[in-house]
Amino acid sequence: MSVIALLTDFGLTDNYVGVMKGVMLTINPAASIVDITHAISSHNIKQGAWVLGQSFSYFPHGTIFVVVVDPGVGSSRKSIAIKTKNYFFAGPDNGILSMAAKKDGIEKIIVLENKHYWLENICSTFHGRDIFAPVAAYLSSGVSVTSLGKKIDEIKQIDFTLPAIKNNEMRAEIIYGDTFGNLVTNIDDQTMQSFLKGKRFIASLNKKKIKTVCGCYSEAKENEPFFILGSSSLWEISLKNKSAKNYFALSGDKGAIVQIERQ
Amino acid sequence: MSVIALLTDFGLTDNYVGVMKGVMLTINPAASIVDITHAISSHNIKQGAWVLGQSFSYFPHGTIFVVVVDPGVGSSRKSIAIKTKNYFFAGPDNGILSMAAKKDGIEKIIVLENKHYWLENICSTFHGRDIFAPVAAYLSSGVSVTSLGKKIDEIKQIDFTLPAIKNNEMRAEIIYGDTFGNLVTNIDDQTMQSFLKGKRFIASLNKKKIKTVCGCYSEAKENEPFFILGSSSLWEISLKNKSAKNYFALSGDKGAIVQIERQ
Amino acid sequence: MSVIALLTDFGLTDNYVGVMKGVMLTINPAASIVDITHAISSHNIKQGAWVLGQSFSYFPHGTIFVVVVDPGVGSSRKSIAIKTKNYFFAGPDNGILSMAAKKDGIEKIIVLENKHYWLENICSTFHGRDIFAPVAAYLSSGVSVTSLGKKIDEIKQIDFTLPAIKNNEMRAEIIYGDTFGNLVTNIDDQTMQSFLKGKRFIASLNKKKIKTVCGCYSEAKENEPFFILGSSSLWEISLKNKSAKNYFALSGDKGAIVQIERQ
Repeated sequence: MSVIALLTDFGLTDNYVGVMKGVMLTINPAASIVDITHAISSHNIKQGAWVLGQSFSYFPHGTIFVVVVDPGVGSSRKSIAIKTKNYFFAGPDNGILSMAAKKDGIEKIIVLENKHYWLENICSTFHGRDIFAPVAAYLSSGVSVTSLGKKIDEIKQIDFTLPAIKNNEMRAEIIYGDTFGNLVTNIDDQTMQSFLKGKRFIASLNKKKIKTVCGCYSEAKENEPFFILGSSSLWEISLKNKSAKNYFALSGDKGAIVQIERQ
Repeated sequence: MSVIALLTDFGLTDNYVGVMKGVMLTINPAASIVDITHAISSHNIKQGAWVLGQSFSYFPHGTIFVVVVDPGVGSSRKSIAIKTKNYFFAGPDNGILSMAAKKDGIEKIIVLENKHYWLENICSTFHGRDIFAPVAAYLSSGVSVTSLGKKIDEIKQIDFTLPAIKNNEMRAEIIYGDTFGNLVTNIDDQTMQSFLKGKRFIASLNKKKIKTVCGCYSEAKENEPFFILGSSSLWEISLKNKSAKNYFALSGDKGAIVQIERQ
Repeated sequence: MSVIALLTDFGLTDNYVGVMKGVMLTINPAASIVDITHAISSHNIKQGAWVLGQSFSYFPHGTIFVVVVDPGVGSSRKSIAIKTKNYFFAGPDNGILSMAAKKDGIEKIIVLENKHYWLENICSTFHGRDIFAPVAAYLSSGVSVTSLGKKIDEIKQIDFTLPAIKNNEMRAEIIYGDTFGNLVTNIDDQTMQSFLKGKRFIASLNKKKIKTVCGCYSEAKENEPFFILGSSSLWEISLKNKSAKNYFALSGDKGAIVQIERQ
């Protein structure tokens, strides 16, 4: 029983996600369909690529990911499916699949061209329903990825900014604020360790300071923001039982710069 | 394995939808349960009827739809199940099933009266859990629709307004605003084509103008609203990478009038 | 096919819930996973315990509940699994499981210690993914609860306030406001009946009055709040087709006091 996992910016207010599931179950009644999230910000391809890159490896090998953040729907942007070492991905070729596919190792890239595996009527605004959902359902029922279209060599890439280090200063970025108000930075564990070298530091974000590291939320002091190694193996900035996003008065949830000065 | 598809105004904040699923899995552990949406505006029967009417045909034949927008719960309004050509529907007889059932072709209408297929204790505020969920689960496990109660001949209807055309002017309605801010009108494709006859037009909505038609979002110009044939085969008003709903300053998401003047 | 039912404060915006499902399906591809709700207020253990206590009995016997509202994650608070008469529960030992487990009858309490049933790398901020999800998936595939760790005798309890009655006055609490704005009180049916004894009453909440009881929503008068026996067998305060929560201008959704004076 193949798993099909969905990641979109469609939200759960409209019937879009439900209808995609109806299409898939019509083709493969045994498909096991799971939502990763449908709350990617509208048209935010970069956020979608990042969330997919942090999520895919927790799914069973063979899972087919349907990923639709697609402002270019109906234009000349390609529709693709990718076979990686352990997974399948279907979505628009706008970079959204690039981080996950690269991490897992790309084996084949296919431009979706074989209309036999699409719905009969294709509208220009909802390829999630008309192309990606049926293609994923056919993959889940055993259709080979090469029968979906012709092979190509490259997909569109998205670049993620890495922290910049200069002497005793690191300049990093907030890339995501979660439901609890935790602020995920782009600093991975190795970068943080080799920069800090066990020394003390003062970090600043939107004119406020962060001076401590905690191993878990409950060892933190009230109203004192801290760094913590998050569940996506990136360093996060948190506040005990409160929203760090509110504390630092960040209006958007990404793009803000955090500066760390090693003492 | 029968599919049961859910459409309600219960939201996903409370445990209402989860509990309905528990009830159904207790009766039929093999049921495959899918959410269409639970974000119909509270008590908005007309919106529910419309979303169901746009969604049902994408589901596998034999799907059982449980549809609950039910301000009259516990009153004398009837609880019904409908067998149509390809599907089953269960819900209150307040018009919410009428558009979908009519489209697919009604074969049998049953008033739910056989308490053998209900939960043991019926409360007056949650027939979704106590009547419709168990009835759907029994249908999915092979119980015949006629064993649920006695046949009747009619269900309550809901009327949807059609565009009014007078000489070179069309007066249409915004019936729905989606997550992206696309505004769905009540103009179907045939009505639009036979009205426009390929000529130019000026449309106005809340004192702002729309002058163009686009084949896909990406061919539109920034900050210039346009008509586009939407995924529900109705014409929509959109804005490239932005919310048309915000652009036109619509407070509710329905009821606003769009006037189109053919040149 | 075992059902695994999820209740958390993770929301549906992030990938947290989706990733937990991926972990479970990797271990047991046949698991049937259902969401109760993920909209418990952040860190609100009491609310989570109450919603679980109102929900669990609607699920099939043998269901495994994964319940994560866990501000103490990564600290010394225990991770536990409980076998009750008809169900299994997995979550932090912070009281969140106490109401449901007590209702169903506790048979065994196990401290989760056997790392063989966890993910390989445990992070200090997301035991839902790293411990509770895999443990539930192993339980659903037949692993015995006693193999997960060692038995203990007690779990942390949460106390719920009961209504206080003094002569002809009852002082009760609003414990929950739902999506429709219905206000759930802590008054069960027996307490209400034996207090009112069929007599008239005047209740007050935030300086406004409630004087009537209705058997169903539709028999109520417009703009006149009323008591109704809710679907969780507790008395609720409602307003016909409107939000009682807004009418009474309650800012939070819990903790407000309702006073009932028997005439």
